[in-house]
Amino acid sequence: MLFKTGDIPSFKLFENDKVFAFLDIQPLSRGHALIIPKFHGAKLVDIPDDSLTEVLPLAKKIAKATGAADYNILQNNGRAAHQVVDHVHFHVIPKPNEDEGLGITWPAQTTDMEKLKALFEELKSKM
Amino acid sequence: MLFKTGDIPSFKLFENDKVFAFLDIQPLSRGHALIIPKFHGAKLVDIPDDSLTEVLPLAKKIAKATGAADYNILQNNGRAAHQVVDHVHFHVIPKPNEDEGLGITWPAQTTDMEKLKALFEELKSKM
Repeated sequence: MLFKTGDIPSFKLFENDKVFAFLDIQPLSRGHALIIPKFHGAKLVDIPDDSLTEVLPLAKKIAKATGAADYNILQNNGRAAHQVVDHVHFHVIPKPNEDEGLGITWPAQTTDMEKLKALFEELKSKM
Repeated sequence: MLFKTGDIPSFKLFENDKVFAFLDIQPLSRGHALIIPKFHGAKLVDIPDDSLTEVLPLAKKIAKATGAADYNILQNNGRAAHQVVDHVHFHVIPKPNEDEGLGITWPAQTTDMEKLKALFEELKSKM
């Protein structure tokens, strides 16, 4: 995964004052691209809103350009969540078939309305 | 996964004219929340930019409220990419440990600069 320009030939798809986008050089699939805020921060919570607002319209543009029917948008925060490099980066990952692209497992928990209600009150009070 | 208000008790964390957010009732982990544009579209490419710009600042707010150190932001497009419900939704998924939260596998391909360069030219011409 590359996100420093200058290091290696960088296949830069887009740049403005807030963000840039380029091809991942170890892609999960054809068209796998990264969007990076220029503002340095390790995790989503560290990035100012005026950088974050640039990301998804650009992801949309890239997804369109790849022509992929199926694709994932992913941003990982922390080692446990599969983040390897400590500068926020958003992945646009086409999913052409089962073997290529992002692999997802989904260990859904059973619905517990009481627990959810307590959590809901807690989160509401913090937002 | 719930995203219709009215169906079931909806633990709505936030709402404005463009988006709303609520707790997933079959969470992958404590604090698993969904952000939904009110504009109906199945995939990212269907959603207007003025809705998309609302999503990540809200995801940041939710991530902060959960207090999670590690978390994933995920948006799936298409069955192959693990989308089950055909209205765009963004997941905020805390990753407290290996067993809970999003499971990711990462079948990285080897770097092929020639292939990347050809793809880059193609994508650039389409953006």
